[in-house]
Formats: sequence, C-alpha cells, structure tokens
Amino acid sequence: MNKEELIKTLRVVPDFPKKGIMFFDITTMLKNPDAVEEVANCLYDMYKDKGVTKVVGLESRGFIFAPILANKLHVGFVPIRKPGKLPADTIEQSYTKEYGTDTLQMHKDAINENDVVLIHDDLLATGGSMKAACDLVKQMNPQKILINFVIELTNLNGRKVFDDNIEVDSLLYCSEEEV
Amino acid sequence: MNKEELIKTLRVVPDFPKKGIMFFDITTMLKNPDAVEEVANCLYDMYKDKGVTKVVGLESRGFIFAPILANKLHVGFVPIRKPGKLPADTIEQSYTKEYGTDTLQMHKDAINENDVVLIHDDLLATGGSMKAACDLVKQMNPQKILINFVIELTNLNGRKVFDDNIEVDSLLYCSEEEV
Repeated sequence: MNKEELIKTLRVVPDFPKKGIMFFDITTMLKNPDAVEEVANCLYDMYKDKGVTKVVGLESRGFIFAPILANKLHVGFVPIRKPGKLPADTIEQSYTKEYGTDTLQMHKDAINENDVVLIHDDLLATGGSMKAACDLVKQMNPQKILINFVIELTNLNGRKVFDDNIEVDSLLYCSEEEV
Repeated sequence: MNKEELIKTLRVVPDFPKKGIMFFDITTMLKNPDAVEEVANCLYDMYKDKGVTKVVGLESRGFIFAPILANKLHVGFVPIRKPGKLPADTIEQSYTKEYGTDTLQMHKDAINENDVVLIHDDLLATGGSMKAACDLVKQMNPQKILINFVIELTNLNGRKVFDDNIEVDSLLYCSEEEV
C-alpha cells in the first residue's frame, strides 16, 4: 500500500466538529489492518536509526500508533494526559485554545536527561497541543526531542509553531483545500 | 518475564483518584519495553485461535494495547469513545456511574454481523464501562463477543456483570487487598 492509497483509507467529514472544518477521520484507516501495518512499518523505518529511547503519545488519538511504534522500536511508551488522570507526581503545561486554556500532564518519572524523545500525535492542524506537549517534555531536559504525526494538514502550516532545532516529520501530507 | 514479574512492573497508588481506592497504574509497565512486549505476546497467544475479526478498545487507556493486539492479529481496530468525538454516524450506550450517567459511542460502520469482536480495556474494576461497551457492540449483532483486560481486580468481582455466554479473560489477576 503506497502513500496515496493510505490517504484514501482516511474519511474526510466536512463541518466537524463545527462548520468550516474538514475533519480527517482515521477510524476508517484503523479498521483496515493492511493500512495500520503499513503506517506502523513506515513509522518504524522513519525512526529506527534516530536513537529514540522513549515514544510519547498525546491522549487520546496519539495513544493508538505511539505504543505500536514504541513496541517496534523496543523502547518505553509514555502517555501525556488531560489533568487528573495520572496518579503519581506530575509536571504540567498549559496552553491557549480558541476558547480558554487547556492543560497537559506527564509523570515526572517518565523521562530523564538521557532520553531521546519522540513525541507522536495522529494529526497536525494548528499545532497548539503538540507545542504544549513539546514544552512539557522540555521541562525534563532530554537529550533531544523529535516530533511525529501520521497526517499533517499542510494548508494550516502548523509546523511553524515549533522551534527550528526540533525535527518535525509526518508520514502523510494532506490539505483541507484539496479534498 | 513471567506474570509475577509483570505485576511488579505496575505501580499501586493508594487513595487515587479518591480515598480508599488502590489505583493500579500501568504507566510504569508501559515505560518498560520488555513488559509491553510480554503483554503483547501473551495477548496474541490468548486470542490468535479465536477467529477474532475486530479488536475494540475503550477510550483512553484501552487504546494502548488494543491497537498493538489488532496489529499482531492483523485485524481492524475500532475505538469506542466519549460523546462528540467520532465524526460520522454513531450508535451510543449510556450507563450509570457512582455519580450520574456516562455515554459511550462507536461508529455505525465499525462492526457488522459477520464480526467476531474482542473488546479490550486495561483494567477490570466494577465493570460498568465494559458492560456498556459490550451492550454497545451487541447493537450491531456480531457473531460473537469476547472481553479482555490486562489486569482484573479479583476482589471487586466485576466479571459478574457480564452475561454467562460471553468469554471474559484477563492476563493478570490482582487484588486491592493484597498490595
């Protein structure tokens, strides 16, 4: 299955969750085992030689491919969660959304200064939550941070919010204007 | 890594999220790639000969091992989510919690009458959300439903809420009274 065929396994739902937004639904991809296998293999090939020691996933959709990739790379998986879900000592990072603010938490003992951390989410739109996740991981002073998405919406140019020294890479590049 | 060693990778946090509850934290297991590999292999062995055609995971912690297992079995993964998260046509199931009610949703096109469905979550406590997930999947009249947990808290006897004809199996059996 090539990248064009992978993109065709996605379902684009207009006006969700509100008018004017083209929602890229990955559930149709997830239902297709060949597509999931292909995504998993491609992500593994992208990161197998990068020295990654932890794969971090953002709740909830980032929990789907991040553990598969961590398992393939044979490194630990670390969840970043909404407030109040993690039971031990946490660090947190707040960020501004369209309406109000939101906060992300991670366990303090999840990452250390020796780690090379790959942070994964399913989709890059404006990049707000991944920027907060990145700032959260930075609090633990890891050796290096890399950022990955399965899908990047190129028309929103979300990658501009990340520092230049952080490697941002996506498997599939899509545009809301081309669907 | 045997089951006793796997259980030792869990962290038990007393009085979380509230007084009197012993919280079994899987994040310490997830950080350990040998533990994740062992869980994944054990789950695969438990279900490889059961004719499973879809693995369903409950948001959020059920999203971690369900996609790994679906990928190993080479079958589709289906997410059950909180209301308002799934963009296409959904079915839903409400259930009573300690305070008030909660609702779970699944895409209508996720499962059909030919499927043998394995529903997975990380932990069985009182079984309320898994019972609702099971009732939700039943709405689609699949061939068969199987239920799986990584951890079952035996002292709460949560498995009594499921119908006798549904196969419920867990990888690790723990008791809040023995930690």
